Amino acid sequence: MSLENTNVNKSFGGWTKHYAHRSTTLNCDMRFAIHLPPQTANGQKVPVIYWLSGLTCTDENFMQKGGAQRMAAALGIAIVAPDTSPRGTDVADDDSYDLGKGAGFYVNATQAPWNRHYHMYDYVLNELPQLIETTFPVSDKRSIFGHSMGGHGALVMALRNPERFQSVSAFSPIANPVDCPWGQKALTAYLGKDTAAWADYDASILMRKADVLVPALVDQGEADEFLEDQLKPEALEAAAKASGYPLKLNRRDGYDHSYYFIASYIEDHLLFHAGHLNL
Amino acid sequence: MSLENTNVNKSFGGWTKHYAHRSTTLNCDMRFAIHLPPQTANGQKVPVIYWLSGLTCTDENFMQKGGAQRMAAALGIAIVAPDTSPRGTDVADDDSYDLGKGAGFYVNATQAPWNRHYHMYDYVLNELPQLIETTFPVSDKRSIFGHSMGGHGALVMALRNPERFQSVSAFSPIANPVDCPWGQKALTAYLGKDTAAWADYDASILMRKADVLVPALVDQGEADEFLEDQLKPEALEAAAKASGYPLKLNRRDGYDHSYYFIASYIEDHLLFHAGHLNL
Repeated sequence: MSLENTNVNKSFGGWTKHYAHRSTTLNCDMRFAIHLPPQTANGQKVPVIYWLSGLTCTDENFMQKGGAQRMAAALGIAIVAPDTSPRGTDVADDDSYDLGKGAGFYVNATQAPWNRHYHMYDYVLNELPQLIETTFPVSDKRSIFGHSMGGHGALVMALRNPERFQSVSAFSPIANPVDCPWGQKALTAYLGKDTAAWADYDASILMRKADVLVPALVDQGEADEFLEDQLKPEALEAAAKASGYPLKLNRRDGYDHSYYFIASYIEDHLLFHAGHLNL
Repeated sequence: MSLENTNVNKSFGGWTKHYAHRSTTLNCDMRFAIHLPPQTANGQKVPVIYWLSGLTCTDENFMQKGGAQRMAAALGIAIVAPDTSPRGTDVADDDSYDLGKGAGFYVNATQAPWNRHYHMYDYVLNELPQLIETTFPVSDKRSIFGHSMGGHGALVMALRNPERFQSVSAFSPIANPVDCPWGQKALTAYLGKDTAAWADYDASILMRKADVLVPALVDQGEADEFLEDQLKPEALEAAAKASGYPLKLNRRDGYDHSYYFIASYIEDHLLFHAGHLNL
């Protein structure tokens, strides 16, 4: 399959587009969304922020519910939202919502049966940006953000590859996956029982030893049902304190884990990234 | 069933809430959403804009995808979004998406089997506002807007009850339902084959003979797939011209029938209503 434009919706003077393509990294057909702001209509190259979604999401949720297009137009930023796992009838899956399809956790799986397709880390870091930057009117300036599992993914991507991203932010990230049920289940399945292999995918462990520092913003709702058991922002705060990492972490009274929270603060996140993208 | 709060999400400093209740008008259990802006936390009574959704929608679509909460907070406006039809296992339905559940067309049905439950006109005009105004910190100042089938509903409500609404607006309304396939199918089923009964539910017919004039705003996407066959804004424009009606109708290049269009211009509509609600 070559790159196929499956849908386009005009939005705030720009275009929210969905594409299907064959991923060589994931060994399956994939979908992604890209929002191009109105500035691109004249061939202007704009920077890209990659959005990584949370458990059960697809390439659609953020574009429909995130409310980012308004500020994307004001600032001149493109946003790319990949799917959350490999897809297809021959792709390994699990009955639970937090493993398998919709739950790729942005890792490179090493364990069967997952290692045949589940290489979301390489897909998001390499294949997708190469495709985006050779296809669309975008520059090679990148930032990255995400929600929950995708907040974990965004932080890990930026912490391990500081030369690739100008800034990173997250809503309600799984901040310390080696120490929570969601993370332990997924990392065991994808990486095996040896926890030494997990450390490369834990934002709190990575932030504690970071030396090249990508500016980071995190927003966390205080009424988030997953806050205590799964998200553990205190681990990230402790890591930042230990390494002097430039992390700004806001706790927001009354907000939960939903897209209503994301939409309420998306403007802050886009302005944060715009500042670091020199817009 | 008494009024039951089934869900609440904090959003832009306010609260998007979902409720279930027993509707005596519709003779079934119903759901609606209300967004209360932050001003209501101090007991301030705010005006209400009623949002009527389109075919296949529920009480959820607008709150999740419309992007209205940001300006609702800035302006101090509550928004109420009812479901689009009666619901329940004993409610008459049809296999098609444009008749029966999800397609109440905001009429009072007179024909069996629809007349047992399908009285959305009375529900939206009377029962729901009474419930809202006796339950929530809102004033009795009301405006109304909607999308597609709901744009039709909003225009009909305001044109027939100008004393109830300060202003009306619509995205992509079914502007002349007596003269399009969606409208003819629904009106035949709900009201019978005698087209004389249809005129009370046709915005273009009502606007042509209006004497008390509720200010009206309509936005219509030029790339809307339903524009020519179903929506017919030119009929509404001709009616407004004939009666000198204060209708502002914008045609928007490149926009389609989706919530991406609604979100792109929701700020304009909220500002329009705020002006007529004296905010």
